[in-house]
Amino acid sequence: MTLDEITAFLHESMPITQRLGARVEAYDGDSVRLAAPLAPNLNHHGTAFGGSLSALAVLSGWVLLHLQLRERGIPTRLVIQRSVFDFAAPVEGDFTATSVLPTAAAWNRFLATLARHRRARVTVSSTLACASGVGGRHEGRYVAVRI
Amino acid sequence: MTLDEITAFLHESMPITQRLGARVEAYDGDSVRLAAPLAPNLNHHGTAFGGSLSALAVLSGWVLLHLQLRERGIPTRLVIQRSVFDFAAPVEGDFTATSVLPTAAAWNRFLATLARHRRARVTVSSTLACASGVGGRHEGRYVAVRI
Repeated sequence: MTLDEITAFLHESMPITQRLGARVEAYDGDSVRLAAPLAPNLNHHGTAFGGSLSALAVLSGWVLLHLQLRERGIPTRLVIQRSVFDFAAPVEGDFTATSVLPTAAAWNRFLATLARHRRARVTVSSTLACASGVGGRHEGRYVAVRI
Repeated sequence: MTLDEITAFLHESMPITQRLGARVEAYDGDSVRLAAPLAPNLNHHGTAFGGSLSALAVLSGWVLLHLQLRERGIPTRLVIQRSVFDFAAPVEGDFTATSVLPTAAAWNRFLATLARHRRARVTVSSTLACASGVGGRHEGRYVAVRI
């Protein structure tokens, strides 16, 4: 799948991601970067709405895990269980959410648990950034259930 | 302001809230209930996308504080600082986010701090629900700065 194909899949299966203007900009196996324009996500103060930042961060962690599990041929139902977003600074332009896999130990433990049992949890960290710097940090705990 | 006027204000000043289908359903001074349809917020699994639930919860706390501060004639820049969402169950239909003011002691402390200093923080809890029950719980910490 190319980045454009992943973006098209998101827009088709989760319509709000198209409304956010979310697109997959980069994926290297260990991390994924999603981008979104400011305009559709403006708040009352002319900066990005916190709910949009949070949604893009939740999505970026989901996309990273989805692509990783897909490459490994492990079909799962993958949902978020807990989302913690610390907003650091107002986001005054287009923004990105970059998610990275956890440490190799945590990641291997997740895969081993998923193989042994039907279900496993993993935490993915994301950084929200815009041209002026970091706008916030997100931690998402996701649950994968083999189907 | 009627509920429809508040909804129209949200849609105009934060375009993504219209895309979410968010509308203000009830407001009694102490709590506010926002509603959104499932269709535009569907995920890959046919339930509500976690990012949409999170965005509606963030918005509901913001609306409650915004209306309260507006009624008191206190113009502020109001932004979210920290968002914690615990997802409890898949949301399989239209959903609501109900935010309630904190305890009277915490609320009065917030107003007193805002009056004395230029800036104050307050935490607002929200419950995300659909026909089948509670879908999750949100805690939002918001910062108000007098302008």
